[in-house]
Amino acid sequence: MTKTTSGNFFEDFEIGQVIRHATPRTVTTGDVALYTALYGSRFAVQSSDAFAEGLGYDRAPIDDLLTFHIVFGKTVPDISLNAVANLGYAGGRFLSPVYPGDTLSAVSEIIGKKENSNGKTGVVYVRSTGYTAEGTEVLDYVRWVMVRKRDETSPAPIPVVPELPESLDPISLGNAVPLLNQSAWDDDLAGSHFRFSDYAKGEKIDHVDGMTVEEAEHQLATRLYQNTAKVHFNQHTEGQGRFGARLIYGGHVISLARALSYNGLANAFHIAAINGGRHVAPLFAGDTVYAWSEVLDTAEIEGRRDVGALRLRLVATKNRPCAGFPLKDTEGKYQPDVILDFDYWALMPK
Amino acid sequence: MTKTTSGNFFEDFEIGQVIRHATPRTVTTGDVALYTALYGSRFAVQSSDAFAEGLGYDRAPIDDLLTFHIVFGKTVPDISLNAVANLGYAGGRFLSPVYPGDTLSAVSEIIGKKENSNGKTGVVYVRSTGYTAEGTEVLDYVRWVMVRKRDETSPAPIPVVPELPESLDPISLGNAVPLLNQSAWDDDLAGSHFRFSDYAKGEKIDHVDGMTVEEAEHQLATRLYQNTAKVHFNQHTEGQGRFGARLIYGGHVISLARALSYNGLANAFHIAAINGGRHVAPLFAGDTVYAWSEVLDTAEIEGRRDVGALRLRLVATKNRPCAGFPLKDTEGKYQPDVILDFDYWALMPK
Amino acid sequence: MTKTTSGNFFEDFEIGQVIRHATPRTVTTGDVALYTALYGSRFAVQSSDAFAEGLGYDRAPIDDLLTFHIVFGKTVPDISLNAVANLGYAGGRFLSPVYPGDTLSAVSEIIGKKENSNGKTGVVYVRSTGYTAEGTEVLDYVRWVMVRKRDETSPAPIPVVPELPESLDPISLGNAVPLLNQSAWDDDLAGSHFRFSDYAKGEKIDHVDGMTVEEAEHQLATRLYQNTAKVHFNQHTEGQGRFGARLIYGGHVISLARALSYNGLANAFHIAAINGGRHVAPLFAGDTVYAWSEVLDTAEIEGRRDVGALRLRLVATKNRPCAGFPLKDTEGKYQPDVILDFDYWALMPK
Repeated sequence: MTKTTSGNFFEDFEIGQVIRHATPRTVTTGDVALYTALYGSRFAVQSSDAFAEGLGYDRAPIDDLLTFHIVFGKTVPDISLNAVANLGYAGGRFLSPVYPGDTLSAVSEIIGKKENSNGKTGVVYVRSTGYTAEGTEVLDYVRWVMVRKRDETSPAPIPVVPELPESLDPISLGNAVPLLNQSAWDDDLAGSHFRFSDYAKGEKIDHVDGMTVEEAEHQLATRLYQNTAKVHFNQHTEGQGRFGARLIYGGHVISLARALSYNGLANAFHIAAINGGRHVAPLFAGDTVYAWSEVLDTAEIEGRRDVGALRLRLVATKNRPCAGFPLKDTEGKYQPDVILDFDYWALMPK
Repeated sequence: MTKTTSGNFFEDFEIGQVIRHATPRTVTTGDVALYTALYGSRFAVQSSDAFAEGLGYDRAPIDDLLTFHIVFGKTVPDISLNAVANLGYAGGRFLSPVYPGDTLSAVSEIIGKKENSNGKTGVVYVRSTGYTAEGTEVLDYVRWVMVRKRDETSPAPIPVVPELPESLDPISLGNAVPLLNQSAWDDDLAGSHFRFSDYAKGEKIDHVDGMTVEEAEHQLATRLYQNTAKVHFNQHTEGQGRFGARLIYGGHVISLARALSYNGLANAFHIAAINGGRHVAPLFAGDTVYAWSEVLDTAEIEGRRDVGALRLRLVATKNRPCAGFPLKDTEGKYQPDVILDFDYWALMPK
Repeated sequence: MTKTTSGNFFEDFEIGQVIRHATPRTVTTGDVALYTALYGSRFAVQSSDAFAEGLGYDRAPIDDLLTFHIVFGKTVPDISLNAVANLGYAGGRFLSPVYPGDTLSAVSEIIGKKENSNGKTGVVYVRSTGYTAEGTEVLDYVRWVMVRKRDETSPAPIPVVPELPESLDPISLGNAVPLLNQSAWDDDLAGSHFRFSDYAKGEKIDHVDGMTVEEAEHQLATRLYQNTAKVHFNQHTEGQGRFGARLIYGGHVISLARALSYNGLANAFHIAAINGGRHVAPLFAGDTVYAWSEVLDTAEIEGRRDVGALRLRLVATKNRPCAGFPLKDTEGKYQPDVILDFDYWALMPK
């Protein structure tokens, strides 16, 4: 019997199965510094203890996506080591601020599975929850992945496909943000004078800048998240694989695009929910990432006068500036240089 | 109206204008670790809490150049996003030690501007000040940059060129260093038995070692400083630009040269002032940086018996060892492999 | 007289000589984050304060190899700057846990030297000890290096070759581990249900995964350890040297292999001793590292019921998967793609 984990295959997942993932991880200011070095993020709340404390936080919370990546990374050895593709996200909620010193763990429940018609793979739906050592839930989200079958002759299970929300209800937003002392919000320090009321549904913003990704960078990032998916790290095998190159972790793209979005959305300080997301095309080292955003909706949050919510579509491209807001072609298919279509709720001070 | 910042052009700056920069930044031991990983710096005061505490510091202060880069980085989106060149520095003073936990912000005043004869660009002079959340000034310095005009037909302003000191007066040095408990200075741990009195004006030191720079390294560094200048990050555009490659942030060169200078100047533990500095030629990934120093002057600091000041010229080259102390040719022009000519006051224990 | 250190040559070392090394170094959570980013290590004790505290640690200790690399790095300027090769390690003991906030220094004693028959080089044996600012010894080990002679005509010294243990006695193990509260060991969080009694002498484990190394990664790592050996950093000279490329610090390989070994040895949470180690062949950027382990022995530790000791051989290869457990050819010579043969005691909960 081998002591080595080779990951789960499609047949190994059962509806209702709960998996407690290894390895608990204490988040530190070291992680925060690396996150800044990897993406150049400039949102004031996450960058400055003084700014955050003035608003009512205990100190600067870590970037929401750092929380996401760490929780996601824990699920990889059990959920997606044999994944062919990470198909999508839905229903992601940020439930509590995470501070340096907090220890994050993750647990997942299998909530759906459906074999593909080719009989070789299937789709597994998983709800994963990140929580602290004290038991506080900080994040939950659903993702679905295409996983290989161990044995192509094994019978197809009865398909179970969970009903997933197209977007989170605004009432569910803001749990990870204390009631803000609005007078402490300094637009100069935050980097923009545009507040919640300055944004309108349908508005599109080109984030202008581009960022070229190096192999060392995405490997450092993905290891920082203790994400072990083989495709990101092994040129010896991936060089002979379907792409001929290491595939960059999709979350790296989300973080790059989010950091680029500061230019135009500097006051969108918090990701309150992930409505959905798709990695439309792969990214490789040497490519340059650009991004643009569309305001899909704006919403008040019941009981809160300090912040409003913007539903944003964040689109990333590779090697293509976004002044023309590239997305889909006339047949409704993604244009070839679009790599990410990400739908989230951001909070912004009023 | 766009919500995206495209930076200021020559016409946008007014004499006396004060700009409060985004984003405040809490410095942490994570930044210190990254700084060590990026440059391999070995000065004992910045490396060891125990060493620093024995001398009279609260704990190990962060590297002076880390303070400089973070303050500089904040000024970029407002001052030099449309800069053609960062022409020089003068009058830089380190005013207070910076410790992990301090939050740094920056403010700049426009103190001069002068259009170039080509009518396309102009030089803007800026005094920038870095300060903590408690209001303590930690650094100020002047730099001047060549900036594009938005409109080449706009009239030239009346030229204002500030008078800048050729060097800082020794009496202004040492504000960022507590009175040292000299008996705690351990030469073995510091790495050299050469103290202040062992150095003489005119002495030249070859720092011997060379360091090759990778794209991932300078990008990580420059993002760590939240410096957003496009030329450092975007191969998609820079590959078609004047150099065909991403330009490495000039401050990265200063930090590399300073770290190399440990071999020969191990007890020069603190940069007290930046008299001047010029980035003579660009550096690109794959190049190897070497450095040498010349003692331009030595000075006592009034009221201090613990430390003396060395005025040092720090010269960096690319792909050329410095045993011959390369600098200028017979016509007074910099030799082509010289990339940095940096003039600073360092403190050294007596 | 030069102020620059050019390192010691074979003639400079004397038996019994004690060298106090520069630079003391406070270890921080920043270093821990970088270590995670560089290797992707997932051992729960070092990853989670909560997990470690539950067991009886003050908090998460730093990775044993991070301690090793920092102590080793300090010895380089004095011991191995002119080394032709780092020939081996023996008798390494981890004596006390190291926590973020501890300041590490190193001292070395020359315990042997023997000139090689070529008259150009010799082997120097050194015992190095790492200790905290409070004087607690945290690590000692012997290494021997081949060092150039300054002058090939200088006479050969009387050879002194120390007797070195083939392996550490189990009774010497465990000093860096508190008595563990065994009930707190959570196999799910640790990542494996295999405990000490599940491993048997002779068992071999293929760690499956491979990790490709980039120039920026090993340079960041080696500078983080303040290791100054020229061969790791200077492409300008190494490109014309014996390998045509920068040589990757051998310790980087040990850490990569150890991190890969988590898959199969997730509960082997602590390196208690280094019995021996050899860097069999060089590693260069672009190579992919794989690893396998063999259980050389198992042992009880007198007085401890909480943990047992596994003596492990950790073998790393480049560009060759380890399903076949590659090691030596029929003539007893290492196979060409084997790069590391490392013999250590690991502790594992019972």
